[in-house]
Amino acid sequence: MQIQEAIIAFNEFLDSYKKDQLGGRLLKPVDYILSLGGKRLRPALVIWINQLYGGSLKDALKGALAIEMFHNFSLVHDDIMDEAPLRRGKETIHSKWGNNTAILSGDAMLVLVYKILSQLDESKLKPSLELFNFSALNVCEGQQLDMDFEDLESIKMDDYLMMIGLKTGDLLGASFALGALLAGASQNDIDHLYSFGKKTGIAFQLQDDILDLYGDQKKVGKQKGGDIIANKKTALWIRAFEKADEDQKRAFEKMASEKNSSQKVEMASVLFDQLGVRSEAEEIKSKYQKEAFEHLDAINLTDSSKDMIRKFAEDLLGREF
Amino acid sequence: MQIQEAIIAFNEFLDSYKKDQLGGRLLKPVDYILSLGGKRLRPALVIWINQLYGGSLKDALKGALAIEMFHNFSLVHDDIMDEAPLRRGKETIHSKWGNNTAILSGDAMLVLVYKILSQLDESKLKPSLELFNFSALNVCEGQQLDMDFEDLESIKMDDYLMMIGLKTGDLLGASFALGALLAGASQNDIDHLYSFGKKTGIAFQLQDDILDLYGDQKKVGKQKGGDIIANKKTALWIRAFEKADEDQKRAFEKMASEKNSSQKVEMASVLFDQLGVRSEAEEIKSKYQKEAFEHLDAINLTDSSKDMIRKFAEDLLGREF
Repeated sequence: MQIQEAIIAFNEFLDSYKKDQLGGRLLKPVDYILSLGGKRLRPALVIWINQLYGGSLKDALKGALAIEMFHNFSLVHDDIMDEAPLRRGKETIHSKWGNNTAILSGDAMLVLVYKILSQLDESKLKPSLELFNFSALNVCEGQQLDMDFEDLESIKMDDYLMMIGLKTGDLLGASFALGALLAGASQNDIDHLYSFGKKTGIAFQLQDDILDLYGDQKKVGKQKGGDIIANKKTALWIRAFEKADEDQKRAFEKMASEKNSSQKVEMASVLFDQLGVRSEAEEIKSKYQKEAFEHLDAINLTDSSKDMIRKFAEDLLGREF
Repeated sequence: MQIQEAIIAFNEFLDSYKKDQLGGRLLKPVDYILSLGGKRLRPALVIWINQLYGGSLKDALKGALAIEMFHNFSLVHDDIMDEAPLRRGKETIHSKWGNNTAILSGDAMLVLVYKILSQLDESKLKPSLELFNFSALNVCEGQQLDMDFEDLESIKMDDYLMMIGLKTGDLLGASFALGALLAGASQNDIDHLYSFGKKTGIAFQLQDDILDLYGDQKKVGKQKGGDIIANKKTALWIRAFEKADEDQKRAFEKMASEKNSSQKVEMASVLFDQLGVRSEAEEIKSKYQKEAFEHLDAINLTDSSKDMIRKFAEDLLGREF
């Protein structure tokens, strides 16, 4: 199976689930957010990995749906916290129905995650729940850390890497691991795939940080320096602030309070280039990518399957957009 | 076992859980809300019923903790929605730490519910999850209905009864049913105990509505007519509005816009007495109480155990405070 086939299988399953399960007033926003689309990367990974291990599609689809439902739950609640008006170019749930309905429909989604998991084959239920709960609590912890960091003047790079690991890495790790678990893979493979996914997620976020300023704008399709304009403390920002001398710290302050967006981005470019933080961020990214591949090497799949997974990760981490 | 012993057993278990499991920044508010106390009625019921069926205390304590954790999760999120500054006389989580932390720590509590459930004996895991998910989605649905009702000019009594059944009844039903399920009771007993608990919960809420205006203030310990002052559409209000003629509808409008609290409560008293709604609300309450006891009669426990449960419900529903 190719990952593209997994995406198609997932979208079909999701459509039938939405038709059968999401009636009623409370679940209308759930149907809405699930219909906004997205790349369906996580659920496709559950299915794809499961199939590479020769698992049963029936359980894999349920696991995939649980992961995608959880991911969307976290988007709904994060969007409230971030006061984000748009998600995938459409109104967020809280903009459309108000904060209370957004809180409540998020809660219902989290219960639905477990309702879906409880329908797994009984021999897989307990380990799937344990894997999932571990990852879900880490995602909550990561979001809390991210909010805490907003109030800090500076952040240590290690703390930042821990935060993105929790917020972004764990659910990707869980997607790979759950696919393997549901196919009856060994604990060794499950653990290594979790670490592979988590480290790939961290490398992906670091790449996102770098592309904000150094990406090909035509391919990125986002405003250049969007993170800078929003005063987000990305890996570039954090490393630059760590290295800055007194003069450069003053330049940082000036940049932070600059109102003109393009001027602000220009100031950041000058500062970050002076301090050479791009290559340092690339190095950290490469380190995580390398470690991720070591975990991949350690699993017990055919070389051709491992090559496909490696190729997938390379495409994901090599993008210029 | 008496229910008082169940409360003591639960509080000991909760203390050790809090000490072992609730470290870290994210879980501080969870520890805080669980430490505010409360009657611990629901968890005590899980344990008590379980022991009356001769179950193992180990699983009962976990089930009890899951129910109490869910109850507190729902309080944390409801308090955000209701903008309530106080809970049990202390600051609510969102007043103390802000809405975002309150949303997120509520989310973490919901994950913790399932983490606790996943530690149940494996033979009980799937049915416990199914029971719990059913009840949890109903609680969310009830809260959504309650919010929807705020925007309506009038509500039908049947819709109100459905809403309080979902919002208050289902979790009480789940408490009784989970205790029995974890002791290996028959599906017949589990179902009847769920209905017994749910209907007892509805009767309890109706009593609460009546006592707001007609309770002995010394025993109630709350402001007389608090629901009237807050323009809450209780069973009394709904029945009165249904029965009101044109003149009385005008009196309703006057009451709704009256700013002076004691005058407002006095106006409601006059109107409700004229329309005789107290006795009607009492009748509906008695109907649910009677139906609840029929479910209790249908279960397969010794007469002395059933008498204890009946006595418990009578005490709960006969209170003048």
